[in-house]
Amino acid sequence: MTLRVGVIGTGAIGKEHIHRITNKLTGARIVAVNDVNAAQAEAAAKGAGVDARVFDSGQELINSPEVDATIVASWGPTHEEFVLASIAAGKPVFCEKPLAVTAEGCRKIVDAEMAHGKRLVQVGFMRRYDRSYRQLKKVLDDEKIGAPLILNCAHRAPAAPGFKGDMAITDSIVHELDVLRWLLNDDYVSAQVILPRKTRLCDADLQDPHVILLRTAQGILINIESFVNAQYGYDIQCHVVGETGTASLPEPADVILRSEAKLSRAILVDWQLRFIDAFDVEFQDWIDCSIRGEAQGPSSWDGYVVSVTTDACVKAKQTGNIEPINIPAIPAFYAG
Amino acid sequence: MTLRVGVIGTGAIGKEHIHRITNKLTGARIVAVNDVNAAQAEAAAKGAGVDARVFDSGQELINSPEVDATIVASWGPTHEEFVLASIAAGKPVFCEKPLAVTAEGCRKIVDAEMAHGKRLVQVGFMRRYDRSYRQLKKVLDDEKIGAPLILNCAHRAPAAPGFKGDMAITDSIVHELDVLRWLLNDDYVSAQVILPRKTRLCDADLQDPHVILLRTAQGILINIESFVNAQYGYDIQCHVVGETGTASLPEPADVILRSEAKLSRAILVDWQLRFIDAFDVEFQDWIDCSIRGEAQGPSSWDGYVVSVTTDACVKAKQTGNIEPINIPAIPAFYAG
Amino acid sequence: MTLRVGVIGTGAIGKEHIHRITNKLTGARIVAVNDVNAAQAEAAAKGAGVDARVFDSGQELINSPEVDATIVASWGPTHEEFVLASIAAGKPVFCEKPLAVTAEGCRKIVDAEMAHGKRLVQVGFMRRYDRSYRQLKKVLDDEKIGAPLILNCAHRAPAAPGFKGDMAITDSIVHELDVLRWLLNDDYVSAQVILPRKTRLCDADLQDPHVILLRTAQGILINIESFVNAQYGYDIQCHVVGETGTASLPEPADVILRSEAKLSRAILVDWQLRFIDAFDVEFQDWIDCSIRGEAQGPSSWDGYVVSVTTDACVKAKQTGNIEPINIPAIPAFYAG
Amino acid sequence: MTLRVGVIGTGAIGKEHIHRITNKLTGARIVAVNDVNAAQAEAAAKGAGVDARVFDSGQELINSPEVDATIVASWGPTHEEFVLASIAAGKPVFCEKPLAVTAEGCRKIVDAEMAHGKRLVQVGFMRRYDRSYRQLKKVLDDEKIGAPLILNCAHRAPAAPGFKGDMAITDSIVHELDVLRWLLNDDYVSAQVILPRKTRLCDADLQDPHVILLRTAQGILINIESFVNAQYGYDIQCHVVGETGTASLPEPADVILRSEAKLSRAILVDWQLRFIDAFDVEFQDWIDCSIRGEAQGPSSWDGYVVSVTTDACVKAKQTGNIEPINIPAIPAFYAG
Repeated sequence: MTLRVGVIGTGAIGKEHIHRITNKLTGARIVAVNDVNAAQAEAAAKGAGVDARVFDSGQELINSPEVDATIVASWGPTHEEFVLASIAAGKPVFCEKPLAVTAEGCRKIVDAEMAHGKRLVQVGFMRRYDRSYRQLKKVLDDEKIGAPLILNCAHRAPAAPGFKGDMAITDSIVHELDVLRWLLNDDYVSAQVILPRKTRLCDADLQDPHVILLRTAQGILINIESFVNAQYGYDIQCHVVGETGTASLPEPADVILRSEAKLSRAILVDWQLRFIDAFDVEFQDWIDCSIRGEAQGPSSWDGYVVSVTTDACVKAKQTGNIEPINIPAIPAFYAG
Repeated sequence: MTLRVGVIGTGAIGKEHIHRITNKLTGARIVAVNDVNAAQAEAAAKGAGVDARVFDSGQELINSPEVDATIVASWGPTHEEFVLASIAAGKPVFCEKPLAVTAEGCRKIVDAEMAHGKRLVQVGFMRRYDRSYRQLKKVLDDEKIGAPLILNCAHRAPAAPGFKGDMAITDSIVHELDVLRWLLNDDYVSAQVILPRKTRLCDADLQDPHVILLRTAQGILINIESFVNAQYGYDIQCHVVGETGTASLPEPADVILRSEAKLSRAILVDWQLRFIDAFDVEFQDWIDCSIRGEAQGPSSWDGYVVSVTTDACVKAKQTGNIEPINIPAIPAFYAG
Repeated sequence: MTLRVGVIGTGAIGKEHIHRITNKLTGARIVAVNDVNAAQAEAAAKGAGVDARVFDSGQELINSPEVDATIVASWGPTHEEFVLASIAAGKPVFCEKPLAVTAEGCRKIVDAEMAHGKRLVQVGFMRRYDRSYRQLKKVLDDEKIGAPLILNCAHRAPAAPGFKGDMAITDSIVHELDVLRWLLNDDYVSAQVILPRKTRLCDADLQDPHVILLRTAQGILINIESFVNAQYGYDIQCHVVGETGTASLPEPADVILRSEAKLSRAILVDWQLRFIDAFDVEFQDWIDCSIRGEAQGPSSWDGYVVSVTTDACVKAKQTGNIEPINIPAIPAFYAG
Repeated sequence: MTLRVGVIGTGAIGKEHIHRITNKLTGARIVAVNDVNAAQAEAAAKGAGVDARVFDSGQELINSPEVDATIVASWGPTHEEFVLASIAAGKPVFCEKPLAVTAEGCRKIVDAEMAHGKRLVQVGFMRRYDRSYRQLKKVLDDEKIGAPLILNCAHRAPAAPGFKGDMAITDSIVHELDVLRWLLNDDYVSAQVILPRKTRLCDADLQDPHVILLRTAQGILINIESFVNAQYGYDIQCHVVGETGTASLPEPADVILRSEAKLSRAILVDWQLRFIDAFDVEFQDWIDCSIRGEAQGPSSWDGYVVSVTTDACVKAKQTGNIEPINIPAIPAFYAG
């Protein structure tokens, strides 16, 4: 069977997913599109050479008998509504982050999905599908470095023109918040945010970098640096200190050069290149699972936990204190 | 359109291609299989959940109106016949190496293809599709290290149980012979083979390692070490010395470990893992090109040149001398 | 002129310095020794083939007209007394850490030295003489990565059999406390100590690892991990995040091996090997300066500041709070 | 005792040795100097603040009762005469390379030293004292990679303004010729020289790079690239392929930078910095041995063997053939 997919939101990310599913992956076909800008939706489909019906609303698209599953790539505040509609329609839905813009909204989705009785939702945390994170997880799961005690992570970008307020936490660190608890099979219990000396190479209003300290239920200390105007490149690091050794995420492979008195290797500057393969693996997996009637990737529960944690980090930034993170016990529905 | 593909030869490699095209790539479908062992062909299709017709002969498969394009993954000595039949049928054919077991056979294919008037043949030299070789080629093409002067390459495997005679040259070094001339946009003019001290960790009859020295038309010196019982892993290296710097193929990325008084990274032991992504890219490209009625990958001419070069290397091993490699000027048909 | 040196304390470290000055460095001669165990002092001199007079007390050794300068390598609590005696005698003194066991004791030395009117004291913080730290300092001083914003440091040892209580702070982290403010030309203003999940591979009573967070006057955030039962090796790390890039202390150079499916390099297990060259440079510099009547290395003031900072870290560990570090303005006597 | 040293030849290298022995090493004192330019000799001593007598001739210096040992750092063609005079005087002599400008001259020295009955001569092959080469030798001696089969070495410099003719062989590769046979405990049996494509970034008359292939008595194949106008830096490489793994000389340690989209480490451009530590170790060892009446470093025999090998390489460059290298059996006097 071929999965007939509808895409809600045909901006840059939506277009990329249309291209990906059409030209790179197998098992699915884009059959429907929707956007607040209908003309853009039509253009996106045409541009990809896809014969897709343009729907007037996301709701109609979701409910159409021609659509087996939906990708939600629209504006963040609309996600909750479309995901709930997909659950109501009993159809698989892939939702880009955030699952909802509030923890309460995420919780509603969790409750609706449990009421439905079967997992339908996958949240777009692509790092779990990145080869290097998977290699790192395998090292940890195989206990090659004993029990993890400390994690030192960094999330650096060359520049972040539109960033303001707490976006470093809400828009970039969320990826760490998801992938690290998956990596450790653990959950967060408290957060502290430290504001180091500010770089002068960004808007005077913006605090950059941030350091977020998290503690897990097992007592593991996680140190995440977010530095979105780091100039030199896009660089994701994760170093785990365990009882008998350390394990670090590898650098993306590239040619080793000896030139101009330097031994060097290129660092990426474009974040999209860093996880481009992960997106492919993520969507192929979603397609394969959807066809089999399963759901395996990051769940509504994961989206909810990340939302609760993000809120605690934002609060910790405001108070300067160590703030508790209260995550309820995981429902059996989502466990294992 | 979906490319309807027939596979001739359903051993390990043939099966893998059936799986790849069915479950990982887009645009093609396996519709036909053939093998000297008909039961194996049927089992291969069934095992992959593919609804494919089993043909009694490769010729019939090639000529069937249900088949748009063919993959030849049968026993080496049969390749020539099936490739010629594909050309006669005017259909695209992907042929695993060798294109033919003799240079004369390769030449026949070249001549037949030119007589046909359009490129139809792609030879299975997958390294050109490997990301790291492409990164290296880009560095050279961008003149990041000036004109190349010397290449130092190594092709090492942990063990090679069935190897004998000149198989190091005819079965493993052929990949270097193809990829290096593509990397340099150059051709070979002479070969010398040096037999260093033998490892004790292989059959007493086998010479291992070999060092092959090639000179190109531009005067570049290429040093290729083939060491198929190197014990420690599967390791492909390529270091280019240019006028202003050097460039080296990156190591496959993997977790960096600090453990037991060592800073380490895993080295692959299974050769299939080294080029597994390259196979995917290679076949997706072949499918895409075949649908468009084009051919872009390694050509019959490339297969012919590698065959001529291989023969010269085998002769150089016998004589101990520097043997000339006489490659005719590339026909306009294959140039550019 | 040859500097005539007396050594107080002839345990392991004292003996090593006798050997170093006698057989590896130039410009000085060991002429006097003293130890609470007189027989040991005599044996230490004899063992090194040195013709040195054994003094009954450190005071006599310091005051002897045969002694130009003194090395204090005795038990920590005795340092203050011998350093004060050296200042009283107007003679250069090299004092292993700690300068004194209390900040108050250090302050007394600072005051005595200022009253004397000329620098005489050098404290044994050898990391400033380590080539890799000097390379890192040069990178920072040359503004290769812009202004430093964050430092991530680690101090790991394979095991620490005798460690208890706060020794991780008082005995090992002191070296970071000295070298980091030298590296940054900055001073600490607050400390926080976080106790991560404990390793099971140490005494049940011992907290290991510790994470110490320091903030400097310029707002730089310093994160120091102390992990003295890290099993895998002796490993000193320092990564500086600056406005335009990052700079990391290099690993000690060693042979790169490909063996047993690993690409690896040895990590030291013996801490003495890590800084053995630094000790040589440190003492040669002390000898050269002493002969010229100068003092350039880590001063009494540095020893005092480290002592104040250590106290704040110990307090922060007890309270769990961010504790202020109150360092007076540096006297002109020690500045520049 | 203090070794009283005379220096013949006070050009750049001679001056450096005067400085080294005076200010960095222990156990020796410069008491005498000589140069064809007497004023320069006097200036060299004065410049180093050394109270040394200026001799009118090297012979007088060697024979003076005030001189215990001699360093020969004069013009190459004069070495033989001064080394022979030192042997005649029964005094230790350190001779910069070459030991003599002809193999015959070297042989005369060997014969004179054996006739004298005791080793007195050390040749200035400093690489044996380099830490990284020693680390590599230990890996080989400990059989960490099994028996060596192939060596790939490179000797690259940014530029070589005065180089002409065969100087790449006679002036730079000589260091590899010495250190590699020491590394392998082996001797050379044949040489081949290959002239790859020439760089355009040097004098039109100069062939650069060269590739020298050597075979040892054990059958090990050695590939040495000499590239003296490599632009990018001074870079010495040595990669050993053994039966069970490979071992490579480490890069000189330096700060790891992330900056301007590059992960990089500096490469040296000044050759003197590469081996500056080795010179110190080499001379301290020579001083210590000379005081003990021993000789342990590179011997006259080593100088002779290198001279014979150099001649064979020069011949191989002329003929293009594989030329035999005929090294007599090592006399018991020099063995072990």
